[in-house]
Amino acid sequence: MDLRERIEALARDARTASRLVADLDTRHKDAWLLRSAERLETARGRILEANHTDIRAAEERGVDAPLLRRLDLADKWSAMLDGLRQVAALPDPVGSISETRVRPNGLRVGRMRIPLGVIAIVYESRPNVTVDAAALCVKAGNAVILRGGSEAIQSNLALAAELRAAALETDVPEDAIALVPVTDRTAVDHLLTLDRYVDLLIPRGGPGLIRKVVAESTIPVLKHDAGVCHVFIDASADPEMARTIVLDSKIRQMAVCNGLETLLCHEAARHSVLPGVLKALQEEGVELRGCPKTCELFADARLASEDDWASEYLDKILAVRVVKDLDEAIAHVQRFGTDHTDVIVTNDHANAQAWQRRVNSSTVGVNCSTAFADGYRLGLGAEIGISTSKLHAFGPMGLEELTTRKFVLSGDGQLRE
Amino acid sequence: MDLRERIEALARDARTASRLVADLDTRHKDAWLLRSAERLETARGRILEANHTDIRAAEERGVDAPLLRRLDLADKWSAMLDGLRQVAALPDPVGSISETRVRPNGLRVGRMRIPLGVIAIVYESRPNVTVDAAALCVKAGNAVILRGGSEAIQSNLALAAELRAAALETDVPEDAIALVPVTDRTAVDHLLTLDRYVDLLIPRGGPGLIRKVVAESTIPVLKHDAGVCHVFIDASADPEMARTIVLDSKIRQMAVCNGLETLLCHEAARHSVLPGVLKALQEEGVELRGCPKTCELFADARLASEDDWASEYLDKILAVRVVKDLDEAIAHVQRFGTDHTDVIVTNDHANAQAWQRRVNSSTVGVNCSTAFADGYRLGLGAEIGISTSKLHAFGPMGLEELTTRKFVLSGDGQLRE
Repeated sequence: MDLRERIEALARDARTASRLVADLDTRHKDAWLLRSAERLETARGRILEANHTDIRAAEERGVDAPLLRRLDLADKWSAMLDGLRQVAALPDPVGSISETRVRPNGLRVGRMRIPLGVIAIVYESRPNVTVDAAALCVKAGNAVILRGGSEAIQSNLALAAELRAAALETDVPEDAIALVPVTDRTAVDHLLTLDRYVDLLIPRGGPGLIRKVVAESTIPVLKHDAGVCHVFIDASADPEMARTIVLDSKIRQMAVCNGLETLLCHEAARHSVLPGVLKALQEEGVELRGCPKTCELFADARLASEDDWASEYLDKILAVRVVKDLDEAIAHVQRFGTDHTDVIVTNDHANAQAWQRRVNSSTVGVNCSTAFADGYRLGLGAEIGISTSKLHAFGPMGLEELTTRKFVLSGDGQLRE
Repeated sequence: MDLRERIEALARDARTASRLVADLDTRHKDAWLLRSAERLETARGRILEANHTDIRAAEERGVDAPLLRRLDLADKWSAMLDGLRQVAALPDPVGSISETRVRPNGLRVGRMRIPLGVIAIVYESRPNVTVDAAALCVKAGNAVILRGGSEAIQSNLALAAELRAAALETDVPEDAIALVPVTDRTAVDHLLTLDRYVDLLIPRGGPGLIRKVVAESTIPVLKHDAGVCHVFIDASADPEMARTIVLDSKIRQMAVCNGLETLLCHEAARHSVLPGVLKALQEEGVELRGCPKTCELFADARLASEDDWASEYLDKILAVRVVKDLDEAIAHVQRFGTDHTDVIVTNDHANAQAWQRRVNSSTVGVNCSTAFADGYRLGLGAEIGISTSKLHAFGPMGLEELTTRKFVLSGDGQLRE
């Protein structure tokens, strides 16, 4: 069997398994999640050994420190296992009926949540995604096809083996958890065309991966793309609130898509609020790249280029621009932003309302950190990622976003004629 | 400017216009809808003349009668104008907030409906889609790019001119209603790659069009594909109800995706219910293609081939199969169906529940006609089509399905740290 045939067989088996998973009751799925956590704990030594093999191989190839950190399972171990137990505790979205109406002819019409079917996740370097993604997909009644990074193959194989073994033990079809077992890059090419078997493809990785998937996939794709996120300090902003929100949005974690990349400031607040904020940033070691007005105000800022406004730095760099009013701030966000996460700091009710109404990013905040663009923090109970596609799910995705809805009709002989 | 540049300019202008349409209040959008109806009425003679030009050209090329009927605007005229007024009367989905929760830290989190942005519709032959689709897309706050069939170009140009003129008169940006003004087939190729500007692509047409769009589009696609729909007559079915539901599902209209294509019958009902149903179908001139048991029972049925179970006839032909129980009926639907519309006729509560739970088609009915798989009949107020994609919208799509949701956060200084 050549590689194309192997990938197709794996997807076809996942499709068959998905029919069974869709019919599983919640207890079954939760039993699998809890048994998986137990098995992983028991196999901890063996899995971390596989993980060390991956890490050593990566070190020998001379990869950079952030990638090595992402690859390391040891410090994510207990969070990963807690994740399984947390997903088991979440309510099952499958089967819930909403919006039930009775039509004038007596026909009862409702919408029932059902699984999507087969979900493929193509990701890079972080082996814990293997466990996190499988847990969420299966809890939502789907089969999952996992394609991790080649640098994490030994870790992923070891993790998936336990998830599948737990499935066998709890009467969940093991083909519902399918890991592409080879590192050959053409495996992804084959996977991308299997729309007969796969209902959704989620790429999680760098811009190269996402571009490739969007261009080549015949399967519907939910992108998890870059975030050029903004905080806008309005004229009426409380200086202390502005300072803490900007710091939390920028400093808390650097290499995250909901991190602050461009600070906008109303010109009426540029003397009263901005200097304190910029000073605090500088003390945290953040390099500032400002518009001419910012540079005039703050000598240590260097002049921003046009490219800076569209940059996702994921680093200790921040672009800063003084704008004349709310309209100019919104126009800037619409032109340079990526519809990800944008926050206003204001004490003006009308401006808060206008910001929430007119900025059509997936997370639009008033007086809070950009770091709340996160499935857990928004109350979804879990997060499979942050979608930058507008279709289906826009922004943080939880369990419900891994399902769809069908119309269920109950009649007593209704005809259309 | 070459064709690629023209299409790109049109899409870019639609994108710019979409920002403005997203901010329009409901009164503005409704004024445009009502003014469009008035203008179309005034221009009726000129438009029907353009329509005749298209019809004469099609006749000269010798196209078949169904296509000529689809092309003809005259008999759809008042329905098309009523449609505009009806869409004006529908509630505006944009701006509504649901699922508002207060998080433990006091942050208020809700989900606000927003437009998708720019929607492209690629369709064939029916010029009334130009008006119907534009009305729904703009009412939901989007810009629309319309690409109709080359055989309807004169009709579409005449219709779009009035919609755009009405926009100018009611302060709606006219570039929000963009018709691709050329019949060159490569225009579609260019359009399919403009994911920078277009958020959603809806192909409405034959399988060739849909395959091409899915394979080539870098824009998210909602397919409107074939329906191989089933009615399952359960052991406990009322014979008269079974007869009327089957007839309404098959005969009412033939060339529709929610029409009945395969009839399944529980073997316990094959003597008591099936003969009456088949006789009624035969009297309506329906050709029957049955499994061996059906042919044994009903001499006029010819033996079905394996292909028949997967056929969308859109014609006076019906495949008929006797199955041993509910499980076999569901297995048949899952194997040969297209997840479109499937109905059980039963008096057994447990079987009705099992059917609604386990058949994951977009419309799953108990004791009603398949013809209810329709946005108007299900209470959506309107219909832009019936999606066979599971993502975003599965089944009949109304106004709400032309929008997405963002998270709106209201805080008083909340940080994640």
